[in-house]
Amino acid sequence: MSVECDKNDHFHDECGVFGVFDHPEAANLTYLGLYSQQHRGQESAGMVCTDGHSFHTHRGMGLVADIFHKSEIKELKGRHGIGHVRYSTSGDSGLRNCQPFSYEYAHGGIAMCHNGNIVNAPDLRKELEKNGSIFQSTSDTEVLIHLVARSQAATMPERLIEAVRQLAGGFSLLVLVEKRLVGVRDRDGIRPLVLGKLDDSWVLASETCAFDLIGAKYVRDIEPGEMVVIEDTGLTSYRPFGPCKPHFCVFEYVYFARPDSTLEGINVYKARYKIGMELAKESPAEADIVVPVPDSGVPPAMGFAEASGIPFQMGLIRNHYVGRTFIEPKQSIRNFGVKLKLNPNRELIAGKRVVLVDDSIVRGTTSRKIVEMVRAAGAAEIHMRISSPPTKYSCFYGVDTPDADELMANKMDLEEMRKAIGADSLAFVSFEGMYNAVGKPREAHCDACFSGDYPVPIEGPRSPQLSLLKIHNKKQ
Amino acid sequence: MSVECDKNDHFHDECGVFGVFDHPEAANLTYLGLYSQQHRGQESAGMVCTDGHSFHTHRGMGLVADIFHKSEIKELKGRHGIGHVRYSTSGDSGLRNCQPFSYEYAHGGIAMCHNGNIVNAPDLRKELEKNGSIFQSTSDTEVLIHLVARSQAATMPERLIEAVRQLAGGFSLLVLVEKRLVGVRDRDGIRPLVLGKLDDSWVLASETCAFDLIGAKYVRDIEPGEMVVIEDTGLTSYRPFGPCKPHFCVFEYVYFARPDSTLEGINVYKARYKIGMELAKESPAEADIVVPVPDSGVPPAMGFAEASGIPFQMGLIRNHYVGRTFIEPKQSIRNFGVKLKLNPNRELIAGKRVVLVDDSIVRGTTSRKIVEMVRAAGAAEIHMRISSPPTKYSCFYGVDTPDADELMANKMDLEEMRKAIGADSLAFVSFEGMYNAVGKPREAHCDACFSGDYPVPIEGPRSPQLSLLKIHNKKQ
Amino acid sequence: MSVECDKNDHFHDECGVFGVFDHPEAANLTYLGLYSQQHRGQESAGMVCTDGHSFHTHRGMGLVADIFHKSEIKELKGRHGIGHVRYSTSGDSGLRNCQPFSYEYAHGGIAMCHNGNIVNAPDLRKELEKNGSIFQSTSDTEVLIHLVARSQAATMPERLIEAVRQLAGGFSLLVLVEKRLVGVRDRDGIRPLVLGKLDDSWVLASETCAFDLIGAKYVRDIEPGEMVVIEDTGLTSYRPFGPCKPHFCVFEYVYFARPDSTLEGINVYKARYKIGMELAKESPAEADIVVPVPDSGVPPAMGFAEASGIPFQMGLIRNHYVGRTFIEPKQSIRNFGVKLKLNPNRELIAGKRVVLVDDSIVRGTTSRKIVEMVRAAGAAEIHMRISSPPTKYSCFYGVDTPDADELMANKMDLEEMRKAIGADSLAFVSFEGMYNAVGKPREAHCDACFSGDYPVPIEGPRSPQLSLLKIHNKKQ
Amino acid sequence: MSVECDKNDHFHDECGVFGVFDHPEAANLTYLGLYSQQHRGQESAGMVCTDGHSFHTHRGMGLVADIFHKSEIKELKGRHGIGHVRYSTSGDSGLRNCQPFSYEYAHGGIAMCHNGNIVNAPDLRKELEKNGSIFQSTSDTEVLIHLVARSQAATMPERLIEAVRQLAGGFSLLVLVEKRLVGVRDRDGIRPLVLGKLDDSWVLASETCAFDLIGAKYVRDIEPGEMVVIEDTGLTSYRPFGPCKPHFCVFEYVYFARPDSTLEGINVYKARYKIGMELAKESPAEADIVVPVPDSGVPPAMGFAEASGIPFQMGLIRNHYVGRTFIEPKQSIRNFGVKLKLNPNRELIAGKRVVLVDDSIVRGTTSRKIVEMVRAAGAAEIHMRISSPPTKYSCFYGVDTPDADELMANKMDLEEMRKAIGADSLAFVSFEGMYNAVGKPREAHCDACFSGDYPVPIEGPRSPQLSLLKIHNKKQ
Repeated sequence: MSVECDKNDHFHDECGVFGVFDHPEAANLTYLGLYSQQHRGQESAGMVCTDGHSFHTHRGMGLVADIFHKSEIKELKGRHGIGHVRYSTSGDSGLRNCQPFSYEYAHGGIAMCHNGNIVNAPDLRKELEKNGSIFQSTSDTEVLIHLVARSQAATMPERLIEAVRQLAGGFSLLVLVEKRLVGVRDRDGIRPLVLGKLDDSWVLASETCAFDLIGAKYVRDIEPGEMVVIEDTGLTSYRPFGPCKPHFCVFEYVYFARPDSTLEGINVYKARYKIGMELAKESPAEADIVVPVPDSGVPPAMGFAEASGIPFQMGLIRNHYVGRTFIEPKQSIRNFGVKLKLNPNRELIAGKRVVLVDDSIVRGTTSRKIVEMVRAAGAAEIHMRISSPPTKYSCFYGVDTPDADELMANKMDLEEMRKAIGADSLAFVSFEGMYNAVGKPREAHCDACFSGDYPVPIEGPRSPQLSLLKIHNKKQ
Repeated sequence: MSVECDKNDHFHDECGVFGVFDHPEAANLTYLGLYSQQHRGQESAGMVCTDGHSFHTHRGMGLVADIFHKSEIKELKGRHGIGHVRYSTSGDSGLRNCQPFSYEYAHGGIAMCHNGNIVNAPDLRKELEKNGSIFQSTSDTEVLIHLVARSQAATMPERLIEAVRQLAGGFSLLVLVEKRLVGVRDRDGIRPLVLGKLDDSWVLASETCAFDLIGAKYVRDIEPGEMVVIEDTGLTSYRPFGPCKPHFCVFEYVYFARPDSTLEGINVYKARYKIGMELAKESPAEADIVVPVPDSGVPPAMGFAEASGIPFQMGLIRNHYVGRTFIEPKQSIRNFGVKLKLNPNRELIAGKRVVLVDDSIVRGTTSRKIVEMVRAAGAAEIHMRISSPPTKYSCFYGVDTPDADELMANKMDLEEMRKAIGADSLAFVSFEGMYNAVGKPREAHCDACFSGDYPVPIEGPRSPQLSLLKIHNKKQ
Repeated sequence: MSVECDKNDHFHDECGVFGVFDHPEAANLTYLGLYSQQHRGQESAGMVCTDGHSFHTHRGMGLVADIFHKSEIKELKGRHGIGHVRYSTSGDSGLRNCQPFSYEYAHGGIAMCHNGNIVNAPDLRKELEKNGSIFQSTSDTEVLIHLVARSQAATMPERLIEAVRQLAGGFSLLVLVEKRLVGVRDRDGIRPLVLGKLDDSWVLASETCAFDLIGAKYVRDIEPGEMVVIEDTGLTSYRPFGPCKPHFCVFEYVYFARPDSTLEGINVYKARYKIGMELAKESPAEADIVVPVPDSGVPPAMGFAEASGIPFQMGLIRNHYVGRTFIEPKQSIRNFGVKLKLNPNRELIAGKRVVLVDDSIVRGTTSRKIVEMVRAAGAAEIHMRISSPPTKYSCFYGVDTPDADELMANKMDLEEMRKAIGADSLAFVSFEGMYNAVGKPREAHCDACFSGDYPVPIEGPRSPQLSLLKIHNKKQ
Repeated sequence: MSVECDKNDHFHDECGVFGVFDHPEAANLTYLGLYSQQHRGQESAGMVCTDGHSFHTHRGMGLVADIFHKSEIKELKGRHGIGHVRYSTSGDSGLRNCQPFSYEYAHGGIAMCHNGNIVNAPDLRKELEKNGSIFQSTSDTEVLIHLVARSQAATMPERLIEAVRQLAGGFSLLVLVEKRLVGVRDRDGIRPLVLGKLDDSWVLASETCAFDLIGAKYVRDIEPGEMVVIEDTGLTSYRPFGPCKPHFCVFEYVYFARPDSTLEGINVYKARYKIGMELAKESPAEADIVVPVPDSGVPPAMGFAEASGIPFQMGLIRNHYVGRTFIEPKQSIRNFGVKLKLNPNRELIAGKRVVLVDDSIVRGTTSRKIVEMVRAAGAAEIHMRISSPPTKYSCFYGVDTPDADELMANKMDLEEMRKAIGADSLAFVSFEGMYNAVGKPREAHCDACFSGDYPVPIEGPRSPQLSLLKIHNKKQ
């Protein structure tokens, strides 16, 4: 299902980051880097550019193309830049929490943004406040800037190392400071971060699709627990956390990442396609057509069709002009919210036994509506196939999932779920099937949302409960 | 290719209309009717609602969801409504030409909108001006309202008949007047117009997908040369032009209409799919994968894959967040405009012989860029297949095509075109193949853009040259 | 009192016009001409510029400085321009009725705007509709353009003469047509229209203050019933109505015009000042200070002070930042609406016997609030003096007055009014005093709002009742 | 002269503050408190409201009435509020520096705003950064919040006392913290701060005119060096700086404050009026009329007229609709910038010997333009009289003055100034005359801008040079 879908019934993508060092068009490139990663967050976006002295910031609520116009880009001067697209995870929403953050401290300007979640941020914040720190946001990023500013270490890399060592969680982090661009990946490598080169300039991004748009060459993934410092003299790699074992988020393959991205060496489209093939082997269905729930259901549906020999058809048409607001009629239109985005093509579906392929079931309400809508279009049978295991647990590393007790798979067994969504059959891909398709061992991944095996311990309540400050800013 | 693509290199969709009579939620339904037909025009939208006395109008530039909010909908009172989405064809752009138009005349209020082009509008206008008419827009619609107002016939249907009889061209037209909703289709039935029912209320739309969203039942297509007058006492059908022969626009099947719409009894998705199958038979290719140019290339590519046995793959990924404005870097990024919308998935394409399926070639510049981009992603061979015959002529019936001398197929033969776009082979579907796929005889269609056979004679220069008035309005 | 004051309790200024012929900076000058006449209408503004061929229009709701920016001015090309500021009188409000109107007709483009009211517009409109005319607005201007378009006369001046001869009412009218700028004043000369010259270019305006800002030289007032046609060959004066007797609106002196304007040879400030002197002679008061209700009360208060020898003091301070919207507290703040605009200076007022000078009393509610507020600031006595006779009748010639039965002076005698507003004494200037101060004979003026003597007959109901059409336009 | 005048040639007002404690309509009252003090700053405005727990903030660029609408006010929940209007003095402009600031620290939420300038803020900031503080703005306020947060004192009043004791400069400061509203005035009492009561709620404001609008009763001025802490148990007065001697800014009387305000027991209008009388005695002129430069020149001109017996006339008319942007014609209009705001009434001025009264001369360019414009209107002689001594020095306590070397009076003697502005005579009020008029001893005031006697020592360069951070925020 598309990320535009019903906010109450689906995962939300979290964040995307982009950075460039020493390029005459830093702001233009950062704009494009964010633009191509817009699927990772549509709530707000921001950019900081600098030549090492002045830091120029522009941030706003909404889509990249609506926030940045020529006039804003023109003001974002400097050869270095970092940018961020965001769907809020920790930190309440609003402009005050938009990243990147930029501050001044004893050694000059500093700007930061990150993708993910620092699970011990509330504790760190409490400690900092005790020592006199003040906070303007509820974002993890501000905590980290304080840690850097408080460090008494002699060099910038040491200060950063001292700071990031205190962090736990899943995060990929970009810092612009003292004529340096820094990229850090948490010790488990939960969130992605890739390194590329455009001409002679280093670039960093969450996904390789950002490199494709600007014509940069992919170099390698930043490693779990690695910190790269890029400066005029070149790139230096540090290991603040010592040796680390990877636990890459498997859900990036299943749902988050753009299908044309390649993460940890695995092409996302291909992984999804193969999951569909595994699913067909594990949970075949006697059916006439395989229909995806667009867009992330398309590759696994194609894989399912190939492996099963059942014809693939685009039986659900997506409306490409889904606006952010819409008018709802008072009289009930059944499944209205889903209908605004998807329309079944009755001529393809009527009388057919349909395999319906989607990427996940979260609360189950959207799935129920889609099944109902497809049945109303005349489907004889509906066999729902899901290209991930049942989602039973919340993510604490940067993916906005509901509390566990709102997850359908946490409360019901398979048969109960099938009944609830109204399908004739229901199956999820197995862990084995999924990792076969990905082509890498399970132990190198985080699949806590499916398994409950959290690689980073979570203590206490998840939410930082920092709701004191509410701010609205208006520029006229 | 998507309608969002390079405006200089593609057809533009023209207009979509929607009307509802006697429903308590007329404005809400018209909103949704336009929303689901947004693909037919993204430049402006408008709506008029009435209870028969006061006419309430709201029009704006941009997308339906950006123009109409709760406050505007609330003001659009009344049980009858008509609405319009528009990509300018005749009439310069701008708010002044936004439809529907509403006026007062001797018999009360009158509002109108249409999809298509009235080819003799300039002559009619000259005649009207000679008799003292004044014009505030350059739209054909205003000409028609004048004709109705000038008619001395006794009844409303007679006045309308007297007026529409004077019109030549391809148009589907909605009128709200004197507690009546009227729908008219030109004598050739070039542009679509369908009739439906929602509970007890009649609805009219350009495409059936509008009915799907609001839950209305499709009743029938309005016939070529038919005028239906809907009033409290029911629906009456008139034949202002006498007996007519249909010439439905075949390009609606190939490109314009939404794939989930059914027009003249033909499902658009199926027609496209079958065109792909015909194309595979007519112009096979030795290749490894079939890749569509999304989105309108998807069904014919699937059909091509089925008929040829070559695997179908989504080798070009579309960016769903294409904004209306973007920042272009000064340094050249090759094929930048196309890259913003499409990204080849190198992992699927590299080393492969690719059949690339698109719906049409207009100026050829976009096709050249796509071919170049796919080749840069490593394609070993590129076999371009087009799901329509070569576009050699301009449309004068409501489709915004370039002048004939800008059409690549008008200036080059097939081999020259192949070279110009850089493909290893190039083929278009034949007329026979296309009509086989559609499943209806060629003589019932207009294919003037491919054949030059214009069912309605065009005299003199095409453009009305009414460029005197330029207006900008601003509401604060 | 200021025009910004309580909309329910005061006259509203009507409209202002400006025109320039054959100047390289036509749009800039028209902008400034409107800017300096903003006091004549704050609801909407518009401008049309042309070089004789293309007509460029921009109109909007709000203030001139908010509607026109550099980008809009740049589009308003051409050496001729007309513009309009408006407070709605006839015609409902909204963008659809914003002037100037521009149309195309048989002889090319035509644009018009006017200040005032055409009292027989509803009848003319009915007749035009009978003959097939359609109307998009409820403005008198549109009626006039139809009349011009319908004229079969051979030359432009003849067409215009034929059209304006049919008009009755009080109006000053500007037309841009066929490389000509035309100015027309109704046969009674009720509304002002002045002619000036800037270098070699003719300019027309409602008030001379527009000439001061752009540095134009005042030449003369257009005469009652005069039509001037300005073209490349020079200015020609016509007399469409034959010989006419003037009836200039005396309220322009009392309230409407800017004090630095000179109309019909009379400086507005001086007229107001002398009215204050007459008032002091006619209705003296034993008092300690004379306090004006700013701003139009300032000159008569100064005149009153000079004639009476009582010191003049600015005892009411006006807030210069009165915004168009404000937040009202739920708890009652007495006289809140007036307090937002005016604050009494207690230190000047406490214990003093105060002569309070205002320009008029309409409904009486604002006067009551001001008296109450001044008394709360400690005034020992309040002697209200009004620099116009009692307002007993509505204006039908372009001034937005309430219906007669809402006018305090129409319902009460002097003593009742004094009690109602809570003053210790109340006096209005007499007709004699007022015309002495103005220095011209009463018979040359319209004072219908005070006397009920309407120079132009009014038949039937005043309001045109053309409320069918409601439109909202939105440019994005 | 009005604060709207030429930004390059005049003082700018600095800031205004307002606070209310324990009132059900805290946001509404703060809105009105800012609205009535808009003359103290038009660049930005902000408000923080709280019930002691959540802090709600809204800030924006522009005027109060444009920044706060019903929806924003509704979100500003709580019974306590502080607000700020600002014309930037220290700290570059932009939303990032808009006050009030709100933060969280170890003891909860804290919000602050101030009027004035903390002269040792750069030193304090450097020290704080050395100890790990980070800064998001260049505002003095942020420094102070850090000082409070870093204090290890046990109680809130002690923490605040510890923090404010470190501050030097001229400032009036409001703090919302831990269910308390705090008001602090610097030890010299340079900037004003008044205490009032509305029903049972305490209110604080820069000027008494804020109390007049909301109907609050003036209680007393906060004393120099006093800190009042208002909490549920009542108001407590502290003396953080020990005994202090007042040095109130005399320029508040001459120019800044609204004429209807009473500060330090002196009514501003009366002080200005009497300065005019003193000026007439000290520097009489043989003339026919006294004309003020509106608005702050009005009271001294009236005083001059009374003392001299020369008639007072409003010979310069102010345009009340001066917008923030305007179109400038390419062809030179002499004194265009001044003409947009002021127009001489030629009929009053022509042939007359004019005493022109203004409040001050800064760079001298506006004065020169006004003199030229009045002479062009026909004045026979122009005698310029200024209601303050020559402005020779910059202010470092919160008034935005140019550098000393840009001040006309710093570079020229009286005769040179007279020649430069083109007047026939020129005189400034003397120190004695000014203080006679004010009615209080000179030693109780700061007149550093006239005398160079700075009550608070200034070390090093004045500007904090904190230009690293530039931010633009956008809410959509």
